[in-house]
Amino acid sequence: MKRKSQRESGSPSGTLSALSLAHGKRVRLWRLLYGHGPANGTLMVLPLDQGLEHGPADFFPHPPAVDPDYQFRLATEGGYSAIALGVGLAEKYMGAYAGRIPLVLKLNGKTNIPDDAEAVSPALASVEDAVRLGADAVGYTVYVGSPRQDDELREAGRVRQECERFGMPLVLWSYPRGRAIDERGGKGSLYAQDYAARVALEVGADIVKLHEPTKANARVPEPYRSLREPHEASVRRVVRSAGRVMVLFSGGEKDDDEARVLARVRLYMNAGATGVMFGRNMWLRPLDDALALTRRVHNILARHAR
Amino acid sequence: MKRKSQRESGSPSGTLSALSLAHGKRVRLWRLLYGHGPANGTLMVLPLDQGLEHGPADFFPHPPAVDPDYQFRLATEGGYSAIALGVGLAEKYMGAYAGRIPLVLKLNGKTNIPDDAEAVSPALASVEDAVRLGADAVGYTVYVGSPRQDDELREAGRVRQECERFGMPLVLWSYPRGRAIDERGGKGSLYAQDYAARVALEVGADIVKLHEPTKANARVPEPYRSLREPHEASVRRVVRSAGRVMVLFSGGEKDDDEARVLARVRLYMNAGATGVMFGRNMWLRPLDDALALTRRVHNILARHAR
Amino acid sequence: MKRKSQRESGSPSGTLSALSLAHGKRVRLWRLLYGHGPANGTLMVLPLDQGLEHGPADFFPHPPAVDPDYQFRLATEGGYSAIALGVGLAEKYMGAYAGRIPLVLKLNGKTNIPDDAEAVSPALASVEDAVRLGADAVGYTVYVGSPRQDDELREAGRVRQECERFGMPLVLWSYPRGRAIDERGGKGSLYAQDYAARVALEVGADIVKLHEPTKANARVPEPYRSLREPHEASVRRVVRSAGRVMVLFSGGEKDDDEARVLARVRLYMNAGATGVMFGRNMWLRPLDDALALTRRVHNILARHAR
Amino acid sequence: MKRKSQRESGSPSGTLSALSLAHGKRVRLWRLLYGHGPANGTLMVLPLDQGLEHGPADFFPHPPAVDPDYQFRLATEGGYSAIALGVGLAEKYMGAYAGRIPLVLKLNGKTNIPDDAEAVSPALASVEDAVRLGADAVGYTVYVGSPRQDDELREAGRVRQECERFGMPLVLWSYPRGRAIDERGGKGSLYAQDYAARVALEVGADIVKLHEPTKANARVPEPYRSLREPHEASVRRVVRSAGRVMVLFSGGEKDDDEARVLARVRLYMNAGATGVMFGRNMWLRPLDDALALTRRVHNILARHAR
Amino acid sequence: MKRKSQRESGSPSGTLSALSLAHGKRVRLWRLLYGHGPANGTLMVLPLDQGLEHGPADFFPHPPAVDPDYQFRLATEGGYSAIALGVGLAEKYMGAYAGRIPLVLKLNGKTNIPDDAEAVSPALASVEDAVRLGADAVGYTVYVGSPRQDDELREAGRVRQECERFGMPLVLWSYPRGRAIDERGGKGSLYAQDYAARVALEVGADIVKLHEPTKANARVPEPYRSLREPHEASVRRVVRSAGRVMVLFSGGEKDDDEARVLARVRLYMNAGATGVMFGRNMWLRPLDDALALTRRVHNILARHAR
Repeated sequence: MKRKSQRESGSPSGTLSALSLAHGKRVRLWRLLYGHGPANGTLMVLPLDQGLEHGPADFFPHPPAVDPDYQFRLATEGGYSAIALGVGLAEKYMGAYAGRIPLVLKLNGKTNIPDDAEAVSPALASVEDAVRLGADAVGYTVYVGSPRQDDELREAGRVRQECERFGMPLVLWSYPRGRAIDERGGKGSLYAQDYAARVALEVGADIVKLHEPTKANARVPEPYRSLREPHEASVRRVVRSAGRVMVLFSGGEKDDDEARVLARVRLYMNAGATGVMFGRNMWLRPLDDALALTRRVHNILARHAR
Repeated sequence: MKRKSQRESGSPSGTLSALSLAHGKRVRLWRLLYGHGPANGTLMVLPLDQGLEHGPADFFPHPPAVDPDYQFRLATEGGYSAIALGVGLAEKYMGAYAGRIPLVLKLNGKTNIPDDAEAVSPALASVEDAVRLGADAVGYTVYVGSPRQDDELREAGRVRQECERFGMPLVLWSYPRGRAIDERGGKGSLYAQDYAARVALEVGADIVKLHEPTKANARVPEPYRSLREPHEASVRRVVRSAGRVMVLFSGGEKDDDEARVLARVRLYMNAGATGVMFGRNMWLRPLDDALALTRRVHNILARHAR
Repeated sequence: MKRKSQRESGSPSGTLSALSLAHGKRVRLWRLLYGHGPANGTLMVLPLDQGLEHGPADFFPHPPAVDPDYQFRLATEGGYSAIALGVGLAEKYMGAYAGRIPLVLKLNGKTNIPDDAEAVSPALASVEDAVRLGADAVGYTVYVGSPRQDDELREAGRVRQECERFGMPLVLWSYPRGRAIDERGGKGSLYAQDYAARVALEVGADIVKLHEPTKANARVPEPYRSLREPHEASVRRVVRSAGRVMVLFSGGEKDDDEARVLARVRLYMNAGATGVMFGRNMWLRPLDDALALTRRVHNILARHAR
Repeated sequence: MKRKSQRESGSPSGTLSALSLAHGKRVRLWRLLYGHGPANGTLMVLPLDQGLEHGPADFFPHPPAVDPDYQFRLATEGGYSAIALGVGLAEKYMGAYAGRIPLVLKLNGKTNIPDDAEAVSPALASVEDAVRLGADAVGYTVYVGSPRQDDELREAGRVRQECERFGMPLVLWSYPRGRAIDERGGKGSLYAQDYAARVALEVGADIVKLHEPTKANARVPEPYRSLREPHEASVRRVVRSAGRVMVLFSGGEKDDDEARVLARVRLYMNAGATGVMFGRNMWLRPLDDALALTRRVHNILARHAR
Repeated sequence: MKRKSQRESGSPSGTLSALSLAHGKRVRLWRLLYGHGPANGTLMVLPLDQGLEHGPADFFPHPPAVDPDYQFRLATEGGYSAIALGVGLAEKYMGAYAGRIPLVLKLNGKTNIPDDAEAVSPALASVEDAVRLGADAVGYTVYVGSPRQDDELREAGRVRQECERFGMPLVLWSYPRGRAIDERGGKGSLYAQDYAARVALEVGADIVKLHEPTKANARVPEPYRSLREPHEASVRRVVRSAGRVMVLFSGGEKDDDEARVLARVRLYMNAGATGVMFGRNMWLRPLDDALALTRRVHNILARHAR
């Protein structure tokens, strides 16, 4: 798929106009929103942090995916807005694709081997690494509500300050996690996702990655437990709680039903999301299938210029 | 409500005269006390840290409040002394209001998801961020009596030193919290609030945010348990324990009875407080109601020039 | 009481002669020992860290004492060698007394709300703060024997290094504390106080604040448990263990019997102490009583020129 | 055995060509891959960190091995690619061999005295030490899956950044370890080794030291538990998961059966490994035996020019 | 006893020749080995860290020893190679002896009040303090095998780096300690001391202080449990495990039987030790007795020029 160089939105000030942005951050966000991918103020990001977060097991359904070159090829041929991965992968695989696909350098990460009761995600790279590698944004995970949230939030604050210094946009993986989250109905609930959206706004993210909220259960706190609203309204509520932070929804586990995948994209965009960050739902398919699905996502996003 | 540019007190040296202040701190405190809000040496601050501290649930009673623009509008139209919020909100929403309302940049914060037995509030921003954003003070929470008080106090000490360096006033949210506080009668007792007031004085705050003390209970330590004094005297006692630190009382949960809200303001001002920091009691009302209530608080404060 | 400007000792080299001192430290110690207070090589220091360490409850027996101005007035009118308090009090109350009374800036402190099993005292201010405020010494608490002694001692080491850098004398509150101390007979025993005295010498204090040792009990370790010696000998033993570190004895809780208070002063001075640091036993009395008692302590110290 | 100065591979760009390398790193990797040892793009490294990791007990089977001079002699006479050891050994024993054998300075390490449930390996030396000592790479252990993985990974990230700064290759000892690993079938399983290989790639290692995977057991997670594939395929799988990170397999405990040792070397090289890091299997033999076995390993590696 | 200025060994390159030493370190080690004490490449060091490590109780058997001047007098009159003590004692007592006795500044230390299950020894002073005080080496304790060994080893690594920077020799108190050591037969066993010797070599010490190994017991791990060798061989084994690190054996508790003390010195020197570090066995005797015993140790060391 050819990279779209023409802007599809009337003006780049669409999404960016409401924000007072440092020059470097404006340049880099413009590149993500209007210089690559749908190039109309929406975002389609291909993430590849699963090898670290879940282990190589995630590649078993489609073995070629274990080679990061596969994802780089998909990201460039599919015309994604950016590829999001860690420093080891960027340094070893980006060379051949340099300049062709923006990089969101994921700074922190962890294995899923110890349990998540006290989840914490350590930094493996710095904003300075991102600058050195020519990245257009950094990605950072915060485990919202973890017993170690003080370390998580303090560190996120430091990363944000480094981002200010270098004019680097901050993409926050705002993930409810930990013992207290489990006790309150789990990480997927509207309660948890809605709080996570606000946390992203409060800590100063530019873009936030969230999950589609699931139904409430008995352990979810009030007023969420008693809340009755259509699912679409819940998705919209989460987007609204993020305020001027652009929302990307995560793809989660692979779904073989492509129609369902596309329906979710439509749901998110109608709810006001800026885009999607789908990994396994893309790169666990053969390249041609993945490119075809990517094109269909492109078509949806094309109808939601921001 | 028009911003009062005339000073209502005879002299700005009213509140500030007893203190040896670095030049920058004097300039900024003057702006808060005599340049905005009642402008007579009293303070009326609008806080918006509840989205992080309690989650979006706090906005449910009045949904427009989820958009920080609402609070900025109320703060400017209502002629507040300052708006107090975190770095994410300041960066994304203050642009349109720059210069019209002083900013108290709240540096630390946390979610209420893990329980408060070992409460600790991590810094999300620095005094340097506050300088960069043009703030006139920083806000900082200390959990008095928490098992992790050593981290809390040490960090507060570092923030105070940065404040000295930049001439930045320090507003301390001095909040009793943690397992040992619960065992001694809870965070609201006179014992706890009186101690919190003194802690603010000891660590070098310029302004302290406290809660109106509640009645003693059987678990409160002596001599507070046996103390018999009118409620007004208890409020005055807390103000006196803060010494030359200016005291703001918190509004707490929304009270639909406006007369009761105003009676509390009178109680605080008669007890020697410098002002109030009411959030939910203001921005959980429709804008016109909130502005009307704000005007009535203004009228009370106007009678207490310092 | 008029400040004695004449030195009462034959030579200031009395106490200071045995020590190789950096110039700044010599200047500041001279000011404490021969420039103020008894001015004969002894010390009478008025401490005011109880508001933080114990809370405002300590001021209940004599309510005017809650206003730090009261202690400043007593310290200057009573001709004390120095007043010892924290950064918040120094910054807000010292202005009117600047130059009239030397300041020992107490750098660390904590509330007594969490229990002391793992006591640790965090720094609220730095040696640089002390320099900025014109202090003649810094005060620092070390909880000897606490399970967190590694943090305590490491931090004390850093403070001592900063003291070297600025020529600032170090007054150590050497306080046995924590679970292991309780198991070994408590913080007041000769065993505990004797060890605390040596720790002060080992870590490089210039002056140490200790408590008068209490009688041994069954849980005290050998050889202290079996030791039989007159109480005077025990006090002398503690002073001797501190070596060339000058010893101040603490006053502890208020004793209404003034004769007993004065007898203790005599006991300490006869045992070789450099002086006393009495707080509640002074400022919990009406000003005239406190000044009268102060004069009588002066008279005792006048007989022990060092 | 004479050091081979001729390159046996057609071009040094064999192994290095796919990577975008900083100049210094390219120089140093070239020296390891083509300047010493087999000099054909493969690696034969002699490690000596067992004295710290296991204690002197490891030398009991062959007492002369307790003297590090023995390993230096073997490494130089045997024509190894490098010797890998810590800062104490390098400083005290390398003098006589300087320039004759590249050094991989092992930066971190620990004793095996406390159990490994919460394994963590502290740094004893820095990348700057490695530069000062003329090392051609640094070695660093990460305990994958340890409850303290956040400290482990964060620290590895810092070391990698220092490596970038100095153009120093990073050899990662990627070792599954800790309570959660034990609960999931132990450190030797394909599950654990495969994950460890990917972690090395993700954190930015240049070379990784792994162990030959053992058979699955009932506690190993899916999909590994149900996986049925020839052992050779499992070894190849691990190499593939490491991507462009060069894989060295560890020797582990001494095996008296030399044929079996050599069969393992063949297995690894056929599976795509870059080489081996055999310690006890070499230096627990008399020098002549060790040199003879080394020659036979050389012969195998000579057939796998990269 | 006159200080021997003549070197008794043929050449100072005796002990130092095998090592590649930075200039400053060579100068300082020469001063210790050939400039003072036996001055023949052996060492006789007088330690005084017991006041901190064990408390003043250690001085009870010979009360004058509580005054550090006593040890300084013994060290200079007895012609010791160095006196080893902490920063507080050095600063307050060394003035009168400056230049007459080399100083080993002991950087870290702790009280024995909390139990040793998780032993850790915090730094009270820095290598820079040692430089400032004119020391010829620093002393540093590492608790080998402690659950907190990561802190211990990391910190020792930092101290070593500072030593490199300033050309300062590092004397390591390599002490097995902690819960896991107790479970494996205790701190005195050959297993523990042998491991401690190797750790000193691995971390880069120049000199190590060890204890004479005791007999094995049932809890000691293999192969040590089954090891049968003469006691002399065990002492020699420990010395050999330390490699090119010079070994000093500790004196431990006072032994009234002087012949037994001297026999131990002979045992150590015959086993290859560089010398002894005897404290209580020296300074718990009246000065004349201590000097006489010192002379007899001198005579033994004179027969072991290195």
